[in-house]
Amino acid sequence: MTHKKIMILGGGQLARMMAMEAFKLGWTPYILSNSHEDPAAQVSLEWVHWDGQDPEPLKYVASLVDHIFFESEFIDPDLIKDILGEEQNKCSPSLELMKEFRDRQTQKQSFLDHDLPSSKLHNTEASVLKSLIEQNKKLVLKKRLFGYDGYGTFFLNSQDDLDSIKESLDSYICEEHIAFTHELAVTYFCFQSQISRLPLVETHQRDSRCLWVKGPSSFENLESFKDLDTKLRAFLKTKKYHGAITFELFLTSDSKLLINELAPRVHNSAHYSLDALPLNQFKAHILCHENFNTPETLSCAEDFAMVNLLGTGESPQNINSFSDTHLHWYAKSENRKGRKMGHLTLLGDDQEKCLELGLKLIGEPIS
Amino acid sequence: MTHKKIMILGGGQLARMMAMEAFKLGWTPYILSNSHEDPAAQVSLEWVHWDGQDPEPLKYVASLVDHIFFESEFIDPDLIKDILGEEQNKCSPSLELMKEFRDRQTQKQSFLDHDLPSSKLHNTEASVLKSLIEQNKKLVLKKRLFGYDGYGTFFLNSQDDLDSIKESLDSYICEEHIAFTHELAVTYFCFQSQISRLPLVETHQRDSRCLWVKGPSSFENLESFKDLDTKLRAFLKTKKYHGAITFELFLTSDSKLLINELAPRVHNSAHYSLDALPLNQFKAHILCHENFNTPETLSCAEDFAMVNLLGTGESPQNINSFSDTHLHWYAKSENRKGRKMGHLTLLGDDQEKCLELGLKLIGEPIS
Repeated sequence: MTHKKIMILGGGQLARMMAMEAFKLGWTPYILSNSHEDPAAQVSLEWVHWDGQDPEPLKYVASLVDHIFFESEFIDPDLIKDILGEEQNKCSPSLELMKEFRDRQTQKQSFLDHDLPSSKLHNTEASVLKSLIEQNKKLVLKKRLFGYDGYGTFFLNSQDDLDSIKESLDSYICEEHIAFTHELAVTYFCFQSQISRLPLVETHQRDSRCLWVKGPSSFENLESFKDLDTKLRAFLKTKKYHGAITFELFLTSDSKLLINELAPRVHNSAHYSLDALPLNQFKAHILCHENFNTPETLSCAEDFAMVNLLGTGESPQNINSFSDTHLHWYAKSENRKGRKMGHLTLLGDDQEKCLELGLKLIGEPIS
Repeated sequence: MTHKKIMILGGGQLARMMAMEAFKLGWTPYILSNSHEDPAAQVSLEWVHWDGQDPEPLKYVASLVDHIFFESEFIDPDLIKDILGEEQNKCSPSLELMKEFRDRQTQKQSFLDHDLPSSKLHNTEASVLKSLIEQNKKLVLKKRLFGYDGYGTFFLNSQDDLDSIKESLDSYICEEHIAFTHELAVTYFCFQSQISRLPLVETHQRDSRCLWVKGPSSFENLESFKDLDTKLRAFLKTKKYHGAITFELFLTSDSKLLINELAPRVHNSAHYSLDALPLNQFKAHILCHENFNTPETLSCAEDFAMVNLLGTGESPQNINSFSDTHLHWYAKSENRKGRKMGHLTLLGDDQEKCLELGLKLIGEPIS
């Protein structure tokens, strides 16, 4: 492994944690973001202002670095492609895959093409949706681009709902709503020659925003998960994917697993890997071009839980100080209610106890 | 716990790892060092050039921050005191303690005053040393200031040795040489209200430079260690010490423990705590002014070993890539033979196996 320079497009907590893992490897991360107060901007001397449009900073830094990584799917792959020219080969994932995966329509199509189980996709023509509503189908509309943490997701229950969104139906996909019993997530690390899987985890969302994660999940033993694991590995191999990728899953009462969506990057549900494993998702993501020798499945020495520290709207936010938890505070300049401000990881013999302690520390009732 | 700003004087790996722990807490670390290529300079947007003398940068940053920390004892406490004026109260450890501990003469005197076991101290008058040499006493000379990794330490075996150093005897202390069977180290974290101890570890030096550390050491069960632990806690309480502090120990064949020296800061022998514990030494050091509630003794869920990655003189240095070790590479601009360039931590059921794997990875014969 040699010293590498990398560019990270984005200034949020995911970029911040990637940069810090780059430092552990002795690498130099260049952060491109819009404000020097951004979480990731603070942690690197090599911060470069980028407004998201100006070609110059992007071109210049791209010429200096070995690899280019993205914090989110909110970038415009066509714009980046135009700016980078031949340097676009430095991007991971490739701009083609980013384009395919960032749009929920093409992402979903990709699942269908590879026989990956997911909820039924409906045509978003108004007449089709009208008829489905009349049949009392439970439907979900999701924005094709820029959705996150539940923003851009709506239930479609009535003609009124449909009327209110009629003008912009093109920018949504429509899926059958899944009555799940559990939400799960699984992350893969794809290197040049090898694919490793993290333990399956259970996630819990409130108001569509992740509140906690615990694992390893005993649902790993389901036949349906073993099947899915095989299919996902084949999918990633075919796609020649490089880096960390997370699949959010629904588990139904008849033990079926359906893919909700994928995130072609590091993901909140695998933050625990920072503290529970020598090979965490941020390190794995930036190491994706190395010839890494890792086991098919990575296992944690201990059970774990992760709880998100959501904004209270009050700055500074009071965080209890405790010696037995791993605190990661993202130092966001604006503390908005419900915003992901940080997270805690708890390790131990029993994931339920880890979660209980985590919820207690953040003042959440234990359900 | 509120958002804090801290100043770290120094740009090496210890400052780098402190800064990265500050970021995890959401704090802002200001790094003062002589080059923007320094290991710690790279990891913070808030790097300020300081030549080690100029009062202005120090004064300015001191006025911005809540606390001031030192990477090493190589700073001049009198100079810092003059520059900082009242802001000197922000320093941890206090400049008085830094002054006492950085000089091996006053450090040793402190051990004697507090009935802490250590090797016999001899007067460094030439006539005294001459007579001791004639009695075939085994003697060690240590530079009072600026010694590290064996630099500044000499054996004094003959009249010739004595003649060669006669002119500068004032700048040394002379100790009886200890025929130890093992070298051990113990680190304490001192907070506002509480003292916590890390597991006792065994250390191995080659050419006076730390090659590896493993633990927890079963020598913790020695009566002599229990006695020493009690004395050290009393010593730290009396001294009103704040932050991490490490005592390097000699174990003799009759199970006696003697203090070799102390380091009033984070220390190589406790680097493993970064990966083996939620409360590592870098985090504990900067949190020393918090009202922290920690157990008397911190325990690790797993056994551990740490191996130093010493410079080969070749840059870039080839590091094997492996998924089951925690790599910390310091990104020093100059790769000198034997220089501490990085370290690896290995966790597992069995510290001997961890160490074996670590030594194998760095290409060292397993003794």
